Amino acid sequence: MEKIRVGITGYGNLGKGVEYAVESSDDMVLAGIFSRRSPEQIKPRTGVPVYSMEQAAQMKNQIDVMIVCGGSANDLPVQTAQLAEHFNLVDSFDTHAKIPEHFENVDKISRKSKKVSIISAGWDPGMFSLNRLYSQAILPNGSDYTFWGKGVSQGHSDAIRRIDGVLDAKQYTIPVDCALERVRSGEQPELTTREKHTRECFVVAKDDADLKFIENQIKTMPNYFADYDTTVHFISKDEFEAEHSGIPHGGVVFRTGTTGKNQKNKHIIEYKLTLDSNPEFTAGVLTACARAAYRLNKEGMSGCKTLFDIPPSYLHQQSPEELRKNLL
Amino acid sequence: MEKIRVGITGYGNLGKGVEYAVESSDDMVLAGIFSRRSPEQIKPRTGVPVYSMEQAAQMKNQIDVMIVCGGSANDLPVQTAQLAEHFNLVDSFDTHAKIPEHFENVDKISRKSKKVSIISAGWDPGMFSLNRLYSQAILPNGSDYTFWGKGVSQGHSDAIRRIDGVLDAKQYTIPVDCALERVRSGEQPELTTREKHTRECFVVAKDDADLKFIENQIKTMPNYFADYDTTVHFISKDEFEAEHSGIPHGGVVFRTGTTGKNQKNKHIIEYKLTLDSNPEFTAGVLTACARAAYRLNKEGMSGCKTLFDIPPSYLHQQSPEELRKNLL
Repeated sequence: MEKIRVGITGYGNLGKGVEYAVESSDDMVLAGIFSRRSPEQIKPRTGVPVYSMEQAAQMKNQIDVMIVCGGSANDLPVQTAQLAEHFNLVDSFDTHAKIPEHFENVDKISRKSKKVSIISAGWDPGMFSLNRLYSQAILPNGSDYTFWGKGVSQGHSDAIRRIDGVLDAKQYTIPVDCALERVRSGEQPELTTREKHTRECFVVAKDDADLKFIENQIKTMPNYFADYDTTVHFISKDEFEAEHSGIPHGGVVFRTGTTGKNQKNKHIIEYKLTLDSNPEFTAGVLTACARAAYRLNKEGMSGCKTLFDIPPSYLHQQSPEELRKNLL
Repeated sequence: MEKIRVGITGYGNLGKGVEYAVESSDDMVLAGIFSRRSPEQIKPRTGVPVYSMEQAAQMKNQIDVMIVCGGSANDLPVQTAQLAEHFNLVDSFDTHAKIPEHFENVDKISRKSKKVSIISAGWDPGMFSLNRLYSQAILPNGSDYTFWGKGVSQGHSDAIRRIDGVLDAKQYTIPVDCALERVRSGEQPELTTREKHTRECFVVAKDDADLKFIENQIKTMPNYFADYDTTVHFISKDEFEAEHSGIPHGGVVFRTGTTGKNQKNKHIIEYKLTLDSNPEFTAGVLTACARAAYRLNKEGMSGCKTLFDIPPSYLHQQSPEELRKNLL
């Protein structure tokens, strides 16, 4: 079997996760890592060659799919667009409001280069979105609910770290149990922001810091914390490193709906993820999408896609015959 | 907007569920019901015209998609094959072991008639199968678990009704809580049949029946009950009608897997259905698939498909642009 040759752009947590995921995929081989840092600074665990971003275009015949592991705010709008000129690719662009714009832009470039790009792959956007789509299609009379956590929000942790006197911080988003239970009962409640999630913060402060000031700055921060019930714990650097070094996340997507005579029959669809490592799970989705991008392009397709456009069987290593026999 | 004209073959619980589901779909209109019974015996709730099965072929220009609502054991192998000569269609064929054979057969006919058939749509096979596929593709190192229930098994209820002295019976399949919890913890246990599900039976016996005999016949019945912990309750006809007239079902599909350094990070994917009406939920899946069959055929596709082959967006009423904007 000819293996799919995968390239990784960006070697942070997500890029490292993809390195593991490609290793776990028998039908793939890692062909190279591309970075904006100078290549000699990077020592990949698997010993795969490292190249500078500028070298990528020259490597277009050695790489079947590029997995672009940059950040959505600044990296992906530029990197995905540039790489789409030469490669089939996958990214995890997750700025929901800007997805249509990113899609249009990448679609134009990928059609011209006759390659396939899959954007916004991951779990939200990604698997959660897919579940919203399938569930709405099946139960047109109903309500959608998405809960995130328990998990680390990178954006909220960063916001705390910018407060004066803070050395390090981690913020967990936590779904409110009784809200989950109300949704799970099929009641179809209307829930405010405050009723759905709480925020818990673990902060390492400087020795001379004003803890009251920090706590108040966090709890009143607009957009990030003001609309939530927030708890702040000050802990030592040692405890922080021992207890809060992971990047867990997850959440639940619900659709609750009704059917039949007088809409009397209730149905509840629940899709729940519990993830020890947010970037490693996201990497699993990206890697499955890389397989799909490669296969779609082999069949002559081009342009930008999302998980909404991909026949599920394209993501799985087995053939359609095997899948029907083993999984249907 | 031109509406999709849907036909229903078979007007039992599933056919009635499809009638409700088409009514809830703004982009569809019910064009007719086809039955083996004589049409005047059938009074559809919506007043839609009823035809005999023999009239179906003549109606091929009035119906865009036929939803075939027969039983898998005897009806669908024949009916789906016959109707595929003239119609785009959807069925819920659920004899897992015979899916490859049914697929090959229907594929040949649908390719010749240049129509699209979607088989084995529902929740298992169907949405549960899809979740097995997606989850395996994302987490290649892991284990799958499917639990059914709490819900009514038609086959097991029928088996009890065939015992001498039984007037009526309903059997509930119930997942074992501690097995669910072990899977949910990510432990990846190996579970025997007995450890996964229990069976609870509600039986209305004849006045002079030998209850000990009936209970023993149930509990020792090979394939159906012998491998399970089974409870039998004898109840009155009134209680039976008051408490056990519904057809609830559901279940959970799990994949638990590991990633990363020394496979130390655990991930749990859980897809759970809680359904007041098994046939009405199945009807929701069939109806969404009817939309997909119609759209695929409009684009020039033909042949047999399953949910594994269908880009998710084809199931939903909204356009790809709207889906990206609203659900991704």
